[in-house]
Amino acid sequence: MTVKAEVRYFEDYEVGVAQEVGTLSLDQAEMIEFASKYDPQDFHVDPDKAAMSPFGGLIASGWHTAAAVMRVLVDRYLDSASSLGSPGLDELRWLAPVRPGDVLTVRAEVVSSRRSSSKPSRGLLHTRAEIFNQDGVMVMSMKAINLVACRSVAN
Amino acid sequence: MTVKAEVRYFEDYEVGVAQEVGTLSLDQAEMIEFASKYDPQDFHVDPDKAAMSPFGGLIASGWHTAAAVMRVLVDRYLDSASSLGSPGLDELRWLAPVRPGDVLTVRAEVVSSRRSSSKPSRGLLHTRAEIFNQDGVMVMSMKAINLVACRSVAN
Repeated sequence: MTVKAEVRYFEDYEVGVAQEVGTLSLDQAEMIEFASKYDPQDFHVDPDKAAMSPFGGLIASGWHTAAAVMRVLVDRYLDSASSLGSPGLDELRWLAPVRPGDVLTVRAEVVSSRRSSSKPSRGLLHTRAEIFNQDGVMVMSMKAINLVACRSVAN
Repeated sequence: MTVKAEVRYFEDYEVGVAQEVGTLSLDQAEMIEFASKYDPQDFHVDPDKAAMSPFGGLIASGWHTAAAVMRVLVDRYLDSASSLGSPGLDELRWLAPVRPGDVLTVRAEVVSSRRSSSKPSRGLLHTRAEIFNQDGVMVMSMKAINLVACRSVAN
């Protein structure tokens, strides 16, 4: 999907078109720092204990992966001039471990969109995001919901 | 729910019993620090622009709220000796803005649980978590899924 408009509005999100949004990678120090604050389970914060866990080594908190994916979406998929926040998401799945140095690619597809009936100046986007590692393994997926301003109220 | 066992296993999570798990609060500096890394939208990182936004002031990234809730769940609901990670969650909803200094209370209820058929040493918990602010407004909810080790394989 190529968006030529300076600001990306609701009308610019095309249903059914999948795109590679961007990539991200987390190193071990970042993983431990995040998890120490928010998700201090052994397999997220302690490399030695993680090695003895079912995961066989340190893995990112799923919340860390999700937050890092959000950063890619904010930078490359949403638009600061039109994004109006999110009421939530569905079916967040952590499908495979994310390990230090993995290179993750974020793919996004607008699966549906509709204008708000109560506030016709905005619309609701439903986006399926799929995140793959460097081996092509899907490590995370979710159905995000985003409120986005419309370019034209009449359209 | 009172859990007397030293280690809390799958068998100790009682379906249908709601509990207050704990509380949390985020200050403005933390909100801006988190969002600057992971969700740098104006209403999460810039108090002046946030004041002009539909939210009327700085609000926490929903991912930050969720991560902070996870910390409460790790400290007070899950058990490091039995928690085996999570395959995901459903129906995460950000229902009302979370503002600096809000005091959030995390309530959790096991809505269903079942042993794994493929790995009978573990079970799957479905937990509904509801997060309320100091005014009793529900600001977030989700249905979490957790893998938890069983005390007894035969049970």
